Amino acid sequence: MSRASRGEGPRDACGVFGIYGHPEAARLTYYGLFALQHRGQESAGLVVSDGCSVRVEKGMGLVSDVLEEGTVSRLPGHLAIGHVRYSTAGSSTLANAQPLVVRYRKGVLAVAHNGNLTNAHRLRERLEEAGSIFQTTVDTEVIAHLIARHGKNGLEAAIVEALREVEGAYALVFLDEDRVIGVRDPFGIRPLSLGRLGGAWVLASETCAFDAIGAEPVRDVEPGEMVVLDQAGVRTRQALESRRRAACVFEYIYLARPDSNLQGMNVHAVRKQLGRRLARDHPAEADIVIGVPDSSISAAAGYAEEAGLPYEMGLVKNRYVGRTFIMPAQGQRASGVRLKLNALRKVIEGRRVVLVDDSIVRGTTARYLVRLLREAGARQVHVRIASPPYANACFYGVDTPDHKELVAASRSVEDIRRQIEADSLAFLSVEALVETVGLPRGGLCLACFTGEYPVAVQDAVGKDGWERGPVPGTAGQVPAGRAAAAGGTVYRVGD
Amino acid sequence: MSRASRGEGPRDACGVFGIYGHPEAARLTYYGLFALQHRGQESAGLVVSDGCSVRVEKGMGLVSDVLEEGTVSRLPGHLAIGHVRYSTAGSSTLANAQPLVVRYRKGVLAVAHNGNLTNAHRLRERLEEAGSIFQTTVDTEVIAHLIARHGKNGLEAAIVEALREVEGAYALVFLDEDRVIGVRDPFGIRPLSLGRLGGAWVLASETCAFDAIGAEPVRDVEPGEMVVLDQAGVRTRQALESRRRAACVFEYIYLARPDSNLQGMNVHAVRKQLGRRLARDHPAEADIVIGVPDSSISAAAGYAEEAGLPYEMGLVKNRYVGRTFIMPAQGQRASGVRLKLNALRKVIEGRRVVLVDDSIVRGTTARYLVRLLREAGARQVHVRIASPPYANACFYGVDTPDHKELVAASRSVEDIRRQIEADSLAFLSVEALVETVGLPRGGLCLACFTGEYPVAVQDAVGKDGWERGPVPGTAGQVPAGRAAAAGGTVYRVGD
Amino acid sequence: MSRASRGEGPRDACGVFGIYGHPEAARLTYYGLFALQHRGQESAGLVVSDGCSVRVEKGMGLVSDVLEEGTVSRLPGHLAIGHVRYSTAGSSTLANAQPLVVRYRKGVLAVAHNGNLTNAHRLRERLEEAGSIFQTTVDTEVIAHLIARHGKNGLEAAIVEALREVEGAYALVFLDEDRVIGVRDPFGIRPLSLGRLGGAWVLASETCAFDAIGAEPVRDVEPGEMVVLDQAGVRTRQALESRRRAACVFEYIYLARPDSNLQGMNVHAVRKQLGRRLARDHPAEADIVIGVPDSSISAAAGYAEEAGLPYEMGLVKNRYVGRTFIMPAQGQRASGVRLKLNALRKVIEGRRVVLVDDSIVRGTTARYLVRLLREAGARQVHVRIASPPYANACFYGVDTPDHKELVAASRSVEDIRRQIEADSLAFLSVEALVETVGLPRGGLCLACFTGEYPVAVQDAVGKDGWERGPVPGTAGQVPAGRAAAAGGTVYRVGD
Amino acid sequence: MSRASRGEGPRDACGVFGIYGHPEAARLTYYGLFALQHRGQESAGLVVSDGCSVRVEKGMGLVSDVLEEGTVSRLPGHLAIGHVRYSTAGSSTLANAQPLVVRYRKGVLAVAHNGNLTNAHRLRERLEEAGSIFQTTVDTEVIAHLIARHGKNGLEAAIVEALREVEGAYALVFLDEDRVIGVRDPFGIRPLSLGRLGGAWVLASETCAFDAIGAEPVRDVEPGEMVVLDQAGVRTRQALESRRRAACVFEYIYLARPDSNLQGMNVHAVRKQLGRRLARDHPAEADIVIGVPDSSISAAAGYAEEAGLPYEMGLVKNRYVGRTFIMPAQGQRASGVRLKLNALRKVIEGRRVVLVDDSIVRGTTARYLVRLLREAGARQVHVRIASPPYANACFYGVDTPDHKELVAASRSVEDIRRQIEADSLAFLSVEALVETVGLPRGGLCLACFTGEYPVAVQDAVGKDGWERGPVPGTAGQVPAGRAAAAGGTVYRVGD
Repeated sequence: MSRASRGEGPRDACGVFGIYGHPEAARLTYYGLFALQHRGQESAGLVVSDGCSVRVEKGMGLVSDVLEEGTVSRLPGHLAIGHVRYSTAGSSTLANAQPLVVRYRKGVLAVAHNGNLTNAHRLRERLEEAGSIFQTTVDTEVIAHLIARHGKNGLEAAIVEALREVEGAYALVFLDEDRVIGVRDPFGIRPLSLGRLGGAWVLASETCAFDAIGAEPVRDVEPGEMVVLDQAGVRTRQALESRRRAACVFEYIYLARPDSNLQGMNVHAVRKQLGRRLARDHPAEADIVIGVPDSSISAAAGYAEEAGLPYEMGLVKNRYVGRTFIMPAQGQRASGVRLKLNALRKVIEGRRVVLVDDSIVRGTTARYLVRLLREAGARQVHVRIASPPYANACFYGVDTPDHKELVAASRSVEDIRRQIEADSLAFLSVEALVETVGLPRGGLCLACFTGEYPVAVQDAVGKDGWERGPVPGTAGQVPAGRAAAAGGTVYRVGD
Repeated sequence: MSRASRGEGPRDACGVFGIYGHPEAARLTYYGLFALQHRGQESAGLVVSDGCSVRVEKGMGLVSDVLEEGTVSRLPGHLAIGHVRYSTAGSSTLANAQPLVVRYRKGVLAVAHNGNLTNAHRLRERLEEAGSIFQTTVDTEVIAHLIARHGKNGLEAAIVEALREVEGAYALVFLDEDRVIGVRDPFGIRPLSLGRLGGAWVLASETCAFDAIGAEPVRDVEPGEMVVLDQAGVRTRQALESRRRAACVFEYIYLARPDSNLQGMNVHAVRKQLGRRLARDHPAEADIVIGVPDSSISAAAGYAEEAGLPYEMGLVKNRYVGRTFIMPAQGQRASGVRLKLNALRKVIEGRRVVLVDDSIVRGTTARYLVRLLREAGARQVHVRIASPPYANACFYGVDTPDHKELVAASRSVEDIRRQIEADSLAFLSVEALVETVGLPRGGLCLACFTGEYPVAVQDAVGKDGWERGPVPGTAGQVPAGRAAAAGGTVYRVGD
Repeated sequence: MSRASRGEGPRDACGVFGIYGHPEAARLTYYGLFALQHRGQESAGLVVSDGCSVRVEKGMGLVSDVLEEGTVSRLPGHLAIGHVRYSTAGSSTLANAQPLVVRYRKGVLAVAHNGNLTNAHRLRERLEEAGSIFQTTVDTEVIAHLIARHGKNGLEAAIVEALREVEGAYALVFLDEDRVIGVRDPFGIRPLSLGRLGGAWVLASETCAFDAIGAEPVRDVEPGEMVVLDQAGVRTRQALESRRRAACVFEYIYLARPDSNLQGMNVHAVRKQLGRRLARDHPAEADIVIGVPDSSISAAAGYAEEAGLPYEMGLVKNRYVGRTFIMPAQGQRASGVRLKLNALRKVIEGRRVVLVDDSIVRGTTARYLVRLLREAGARQVHVRIASPPYANACFYGVDTPDHKELVAASRSVEDIRRQIEADSLAFLSVEALVETVGLPRGGLCLACFTGEYPVAVQDAVGKDGWERGPVPGTAGQVPAGRAAAAGGTVYRVGD
Repeated sequence: MSRASRGEGPRDACGVFGIYGHPEAARLTYYGLFALQHRGQESAGLVVSDGCSVRVEKGMGLVSDVLEEGTVSRLPGHLAIGHVRYSTAGSSTLANAQPLVVRYRKGVLAVAHNGNLTNAHRLRERLEEAGSIFQTTVDTEVIAHLIARHGKNGLEAAIVEALREVEGAYALVFLDEDRVIGVRDPFGIRPLSLGRLGGAWVLASETCAFDAIGAEPVRDVEPGEMVVLDQAGVRTRQALESRRRAACVFEYIYLARPDSNLQGMNVHAVRKQLGRRLARDHPAEADIVIGVPDSSISAAAGYAEEAGLPYEMGLVKNRYVGRTFIMPAQGQRASGVRLKLNALRKVIEGRRVVLVDDSIVRGTTARYLVRLLREAGARQVHVRIASPPYANACFYGVDTPDHKELVAASRSVEDIRRQIEADSLAFLSVEALVETVGLPRGGLCLACFTGEYPVAVQDAVGKDGWERGPVPGTAGQVPAGRAAAAGGTVYRVGD
């Protein structure tokens, strides 16, 4: 069961980082990953090279759990790549932690991948038919196999040839002994930016990682572009033909950190504009506006400003909610326990509240929040969503529930309103979203809202089969005691 | 070195919780402590009784690290108390983790304490002269000794007699086999509230702990009041004569959670009013208002509303900053690394910024923030502090730097402005603070701002001596590997 | 339930170590404790002083788990004491880990104790009546209280006065800022030796700890003697009147390491002589002699030599059996599973076997071994025990089962033979034991065999009550996950 | 640096186990691995199948650290395989922990391997040329690749075809969803036995694993034989042509557990006979015989019996020496510190000692022991080695130092005697060894003594290159704090 299907909404599936030309490459990668932590909390890893030796540190958990600053600082090398991973639970194992490191005919190759291949299942079958073995369940291993098979003419050529066979979304960062290579898929679905820190060059999923290390953002890597960082500086080539750009709009809405810039636009600023537009398109007779911390604060503030209503802190989040804190079971939850979020009665009582959220995926959280506000005395609760109805699963690297669990997949807005028990409900239209983001509609991937997938999703069923079917892997070292109560990796055999 | 003297401002020194009459007393205590986690992250513990057996779980770290929900849920008992602790580093050891549990002539006694005794040093000397031994460095052990020595006539009488000898600030929660007792010092300096959950009664440092478990707040425990929760329900008595109330005003300004209510007033609402008053008293020619996340968000929002300026998210905090993440060393920090807080260039660039913070203690953070904003392109930075200059150390349980490190102890506002490199700087006046909080000046402890200490601080020197001098304790179990690199507990011998 | 009552025979209850005058006092203490590890595996700790600061490291587990050589080596100081602990399960908590460190009127005092007080319960009651509080369940805390109450005239006088009130068995090592003090009870029940390493003086429960650090043994500390190690060298005094010596004979039989010398006699050599005497007194018509590894190897070799029979390795012990390996449940065990000990069929098949063991306590192990040998084809199994029937509980620091569980308490030798299913069974007589050890009968404690207790056991019942009754303590930090499944410390309240 | 090159003598390189047809397959595998623990302490793992799902548990450390009995017992399945691993330090990483589990065209395949391929390097190059990627440094991955490439005609055929390309020593156990397969190399160098437990069939490196679970040994698997355990029972075939048997003689001398039987001969009994023969061929004028615990006890006892000299426990081993205890540095060691082994002065003083050891590899331990005995007062020390001079590195799965570090590689017996400072030194001759073992010389691998390698060692250099050169792998999850101080996996790049 993926986290998304546990009802917590879509989540991103990784962050990548790379640096070439700095004597403390490993340490800066550690800082960069720390800044990208929101993109994946299940595993973290980095690979560093000093031109002779390649060293790996990776493990399950947060960057600060897996990597020790002292250890990292002692890893010698002027080039490094890193990865933070968000995954579905079934394959949340150490074997799947990235970067993936393999030895092939040309030496060592490390790969860090954000995204999802849509033809991975068929490629894998083809490779197995040709005698390949798989030790992980990540798409990245398919890419490594393809590169090894095309490896005769050198790494760069092999990457290009391999990626020509691959379909889907990817922001990839590679490392061998003496270079770092970044590539973005032909639609530029997942983000990847290029930055500079003195004489060193940096790649990262988001620009907030540049800020973390004091680097300057230079530009986004272009769709289909390959950027090679080595002794010669930066080299670039259009590795793959790009017919159109289709940047994931959900990065603006939810995934990216507010202090990151995508295609030069600040994420917080976009979110605030979305809130303003939402207020214009869907005003509400209300007394106060509140947002859901932390992701909807920007949009809520924009709504309040535009509506001329006071923006209030009506919901307070416990800052210590984390992975090890276990929420009480259903029965308990019903009885008014408010551990993760608390509603501020003094603010809410007797008021008509506009509750702004970034998106509704399964609707369970929205209903919970509406009830929480009513228990705290809200006279009315008007829900305003700063994006269109999320009605279609993502196959490009964002972990979403099954189609049938998406509340907007089969329900009208009025149905959803009833289900979440709101006094009124409104979404931003796709048009309003596109206009507000300010990019041409053709330059965005809007599939989750419109169902128009820029890349054909051949393995949509296969993706499920991937998890249920022929899935290898390796159980990580069982953390003392905590252990694999669930029994470690399970390999279920074909049906 | 205390955390405060590392430059992070004053921090509270504990949260307490108690419950009587619920079949899941231990689990609800776990939830309550989780809600009070902001009051102390160094150790956590709970003690539960089923009327026959008393069980203890405590350890170093966060509630979710120390206590496992599964284990806690299996602890039988209908009464329990709990504690989260913030301490100075020197005595951050397992031996000092609370609740303190002792056996004395009447059986088992568990004590959880928020506050600081001002005559602990002399009491301790007196007890040692009488042959007592000490195994911890916490004031709480002094209280336990006094109770044991007065114990002949039963626990309640002994507590009263013991507390008559004690001076200082305390919110205490006791547990023996079949009752929970709460007491607040005669000035009511540290907070303690009474709540109700069905047939069960609850005590907590803050009302947010009531919300966490679905309990209803009933009222604050009064200065000098003793509340006994047992089979008979709630009994109360004025255990100690109270000449005046002197509730800590810093709870409103910084310490308490925004969703808590103190003396019926919501903390967030008070902070917002402080921001509004600040805007009226100290307006600034500026374009935007930003707050320091998370503690100054309420005040900044109030300032913005009152000033009619847009409130912007100009600073973004990395949500994964925690205890194990090691910040880079000084040299590195200077070079623009922004790991914990990042400034939003798109928001700030070219703007005149009002930066609202809740308080300035040592001034180092303020200077860092001003520089961060200027690096991000701020044209001007006007710092507005939603409290008066913090010029006097607290001896009542808030960990503050030494007097000489307090930036306001010996400097004019203009001096401080220069030091933090702001374009302008203003503080709220004591009068404005008192008026805005809306309580009589005589009912508040304003010592940190005014130097008027409600309780004589006899051991002010002794308090230091306590830490530097003859301090026993016990090193906790060294967590495998992480270990006591620093060498565990150090007992420095008299000077 | 104590380990003894789980059927594994008596076990010792601690080892102590002290050193004065070596610049690496902490590291040598670490080595010394490692050599004494067989005396206690449940907790370990050391306290070191450099004359100004006293530092503590202790925790649950083996010396090598609790103490890191790197950390220990960095602890500055020229004097140190240490402790390894074996305890009953009920009070195997971090709070009880030793050395106990307290602050009293004269400063810091650390105490490490091997033994058991027989009037602890009454002393404790008396102290509680006088207003004392207890935070552990160890006798050592009683001693610390008494010293503090007598402390006016200095430590040495206070120790003497305190020990005059105490009855029972103890080898104690104390440390304050600038001296180490060793004391042995007036009967010298538990062992304590003095050694020398260059200019440094050393105290240890057994001489094997001297060998471990390259020190020379000097002599045993005498019954009732106090040895003070400080800047002046060694000072000694007869602190307590000693009417007779009563050294624990079970140290020779089982507890001490074979390479230790007690009263100048090597333990292995004594055990071998016991085996020889056993062969003379109780010969058997047999083909081979085998011992139970590891404790009975010496006696078995002596038996074989004297009997002129081949000594064979008929039982092989899995060297990796440890605390974390869980033996299979009863049903499984019956079916021939041999995880801890395996019988060597090729050696045993068709043979008449003499099985030599050091002692029989509950008889369950003996029966298991006899069955194991028969399964491996033994034609006959003649059990020979190198000590008399163990018929009386020890109250002087050796963890034994309750009287009623001691197989020899109420059964004839023939009854026991039938119970353990041996073809023949013989024990060494008390006389043979005494003669073989070669010390005057009056100089030994033979209570476990004879029931003649040198020190009156006033709290024999109290000892039980101590555990079942009013027992405080403190649960240690729950090791992540492994955790207190059992619920940590339990304080059961009076019956 | 391998452990062998740290001077501790040769060590085996793994133990394997497999079972089919028992409802508690995982638990019995756990017990079996525990019995084989002496063959490898660096990692442990098991794979279990219920016919539908294949589950894996593996990790770094001892069986009891890695596997929890509770977890293991809950793993459903009637077939399982397991592995304990001893490896060189350079590749002691989680990625190399076995069983290796891969997915290939036919489904899941798990492999556990004891031994060493002598043409792995060339096979690997060939596979890389063909586009394969490697994620570990173990030979086992080469085998898995070959099987996958031959996999079209089913697993059994693929294994046979793959092993035809492979040279070297191997005892392999495979598992897929519904069968367990064991294969032994054509020379039968590494041991593998077949056993039976009721209706279940078992495979294990040594018969002591059968005893552990109550199984009966049936017979050794023959050189080149493949044994298939599945629903049909046991099927066998001569998978690979075997020209001669060449069973590792060092298993008898040192590697195997004394309670195991190899080719029907008990290991302890063989060792005792080796000691007897040694006494006949190389008598010594001496007073006592002592062995080095634990490995040389059998031979020493044989020597003593034959020589008519008393066998004495002259050396005592600290039973708690383990992986985490750090021995003191060289300087310290010189000064008479005796932490791991202690000499029994009372036994040794004034005596002429025969010290029997199983083998001499680097000579450093022997010199240390001779010195230890002299310090303890030995008048003379006569060293007798129960095997011939160890003069040639093993390429078949036993970790030995480099040729140049083998003391016997280039020195005469007299040179060695001088180096180890013995009064006399003698080895068993190869002839005496062969005669005593009682197998035809042609049926044994004696390469370490004679230099006659049954299998050509093509990659002898390659083996080194393997470690220094193109070695991929994956750093395991860094155990919190303990951590990869050494920097985790290092991939050194070609020379």
